[in-house]
Amino acid sequence: MTSSVIEDLITSFSKLPGLGPRSARRVTLKLIRERNRLMEPLYRQIGAVLQQVTICQQCNNIDTSDPCHICTDNTRDESLICVVEDVADLWALERSSMYRGRYHVLGGTLSALDNRGPEQLGIPKLVARAGTEAISEIVIATNNTVEGQTTAHYITDALEACNVRITRLAQGIPMGGELDYLDEGTLAAALRARLPF
Amino acid sequence: MTSSVIEDLITSFSKLPGLGPRSARRVTLKLIRERNRLMEPLYRQIGAVLQQVTICQQCNNIDTSDPCHICTDNTRDESLICVVEDVADLWALERSSMYRGRYHVLGGTLSALDNRGPEQLGIPKLVARAGTEAISEIVIATNNTVEGQTTAHYITDALEACNVRITRLAQGIPMGGELDYLDEGTLAAALRARLPF
Repeated sequence: MTSSVIEDLITSFSKLPGLGPRSARRVTLKLIRERNRLMEPLYRQIGAVLQQVTICQQCNNIDTSDPCHICTDNTRDESLICVVEDVADLWALERSSMYRGRYHVLGGTLSALDNRGPEQLGIPKLVARAGTEAISEIVIATNNTVEGQTTAHYITDALEACNVRITRLAQGIPMGGELDYLDEGTLAAALRARLPF
Repeated sequence: MTSSVIEDLITSFSKLPGLGPRSARRVTLKLIRERNRLMEPLYRQIGAVLQQVTICQQCNNIDTSDPCHICTDNTRDESLICVVEDVADLWALERSSMYRGRYHVLGGTLSALDNRGPEQLGIPKLVARAGTEAISEIVIATNNTVEGQTTAHYITDALEACNVRITRLAQGIPMGGELDYLDEGTLAAALRARLPF
């Protein structure tokens, strides 16, 4: 159809999440058409990420420094660790600007099928942090799915020996949520956890 | 939220067609996680496209050589030119495997608002090709939209003086349909049934 360098680029784009063959073609053409405004900056930025980005050995966050800027931020509460499944979840919590502690990124949920055990999720490392660091509370913020909650239970058990408060995110009705559109599970959880007005 | 090199990359991805802030974050994280399998090949491929891709001076196609591989392909019918709005439309016709002539890529439709006149679409160049080259037929394959058909009429008028058969794709393409969005079967059928303009 076209030259192989363009074909190869389209194929690579089509492997990315949310992009299929058609959108990969559109993206490639757009980049070629807007070479100076889009393609050259993108090329430089991917190069910079390739060169600079590393994984924080302390919390598994992705950053340009190890330990990451969250682990080294002195203005944050060192006694608080929030456990998330993924870096995307860490970013989501950071956007809410409500949490000022540190993190532990699991990198997924426990899954025998995908060969992810406690070791792969860094749970022994988390237990070690809870034991040695001056940690007072661990907030478990795994997703509210079967896999996320199973992993949460496992972590709670693993942390039992540590003298640390373990909490989880509140379950209930989301902001802007209309009762008529919510599932029974959410409504049941919200009712169970009802609070004094 | 995160380091600026990652932020910059997310911003660049979010400017591409079909990608918003959330999908740009997903794409960036996927690339960082699959560095060897996805990010490094993508980086090399964008570099190769930046270095090698050029515009064919004869037909405005995008390729690694000028003239492009279609213009220099001796097995193709030199007496046939197909006029398309965009390189994506050329690719779509090539996928149908029905057309074995050459192309003229307009790069859009006539538009006073966007400052695209006949000169910008290379219509004088097309008229010159029709006059000097041994062209027997020009297939007008602009999109079946108001803008595409207006442009098609303008081109037909401009080619009136040339002694050349002018055809258009058969009706059968749905109204408002754009070539890049049609399946190969429809495009092949439309090419087979082309009619005098």
